[in-house]
Amino acid sequence: MDVHQPDQYPRQASAELGVTERTRHRRLREQGSTRVADLDAILRGGFVCHLGVVVDGTPIVVPTVYGVDFATRTLFVHGSVASRSIVRAPEAEVCVTVTHIDGLVLARSVFEHGVNYRSAMVYAVPRLITDGDELLHGLKVLTEHCAPGQWDYARRPNSKEMAATSLLALPLDEASVKTASGPPDDAEGPDGELGLWAGVVPVRTSFGAPEADPALPAGIPVPGHVAALGGGTPGS
Amino acid sequence: MDVHQPDQYPRQASAELGVTERTRHRRLREQGSTRVADLDAILRGGFVCHLGVVVDGTPIVVPTVYGVDFATRTLFVHGSVASRSIVRAPEAEVCVTVTHIDGLVLARSVFEHGVNYRSAMVYAVPRLITDGDELLHGLKVLTEHCAPGQWDYARRPNSKEMAATSLLALPLDEASVKTASGPPDDAEGPDGELGLWAGVVPVRTSFGAPEADPALPAGIPVPGHVAALGGGTPGS
Repeated sequence: MDVHQPDQYPRQASAELGVTERTRHRRLREQGSTRVADLDAILRGGFVCHLGVVVDGTPIVVPTVYGVDFATRTLFVHGSVASRSIVRAPEAEVCVTVTHIDGLVLARSVFEHGVNYRSAMVYAVPRLITDGDELLHGLKVLTEHCAPGQWDYARRPNSKEMAATSLLALPLDEASVKTASGPPDDAEGPDGELGLWAGVVPVRTSFGAPEADPALPAGIPVPGHVAALGGGTPGS
Repeated sequence: MDVHQPDQYPRQASAELGVTERTRHRRLREQGSTRVADLDAILRGGFVCHLGVVVDGTPIVVPTVYGVDFATRTLFVHGSVASRSIVRAPEAEVCVTVTHIDGLVLARSVFEHGVNYRSAMVYAVPRLITDGDELLHGLKVLTEHCAPGQWDYARRPNSKEMAATSLLALPLDEASVKTASGPPDDAEGPDGELGLWAGVVPVRTSFGAPEADPALPAGIPVPGHVAALGGGTPGS
């Protein structure tokens, strides 16, 4: 299976994701999307992904921080574990999955239980960034993705720190977007007559109020761009 | 590298996880743990994992639901994508990662930025459950892990539904537990004198109030075990 076939999701802005063999949606319960806007919304809504790489034939799934340059459709992923595997197998594909959990779906029947979620799986051959300018750009994208305004506020990395940083660049060329939402699906039929409660227990992820470093000297205020995060949800 | 070496995490209750080559903690910023109690707390605290399997040489990372039988140290993972890969490669290892995000760490320097998290990576050769009794047990464990009390409340799966269910069993024999917590690490030295705010923006994940299926007839109350979830955090 060659995933880099002509019908893949084109890098230049298109409203639709291309469909490859493994991003075709198969299961009924899951709703797939081929809309680029849906992919982008999922990527915007978080800052931790799960990066899957193969090491000695075994998959390793590592949580790590990411950021997206939507102008160039590039996903930047922080990762020293991954960089080691990339040095050993520079042509190997990885999978980057970003998932938001929205609710626990409690149905009348155990079989119809599930989770409401939004998930994007990006497949790509990652490139370990070695160029200094590109590394600085990638770190800016990543920092601004996590906390907009922080790149101009904090001290930027020096050359020694840059040399100690592993950053991967992945083209957003191929992705599988899946979501599940809404109430359980067994209101009709005999299960609907069991007299059982059914519904969704929502799951919410949000930022709390910023907590200052205990070592912070008195009189340094929480900057506005940090205060703005408190109470909100990542990416909003 | 043979990961099933004698010094691995023993299945029978031990307070310490064994250390294998790939679960040895390497990075300074990350705190590793070999305590079984830390692994169990992370597994208890969630219900969605990221399952990594290798398909045609490429890693695929799928979010899916899990549950743990702590008595037999067995991880049950729901998964049709994985089951297809297991049928094709029954001896292949998978990686199951459970991650909790606790905060965004905003340091004085970009280099010291990070994420507070708790993460467990479980490596195992999964077994696709085919025995009916074991499947029923696994589904009970998974259901009770997600929503304690729900197994006795909801209608249990019939034989047709069981046949349509893919459940994997993984021994909790080898795991890597990593956490990061606390304030940023650059209060000392010249960065501490920049006069910049530094701290943590906490990230909180919690259950909201249960939302009834709009198709639910009037007069069916939210059962106590479901109401008990609202406002709490998964696994607490």
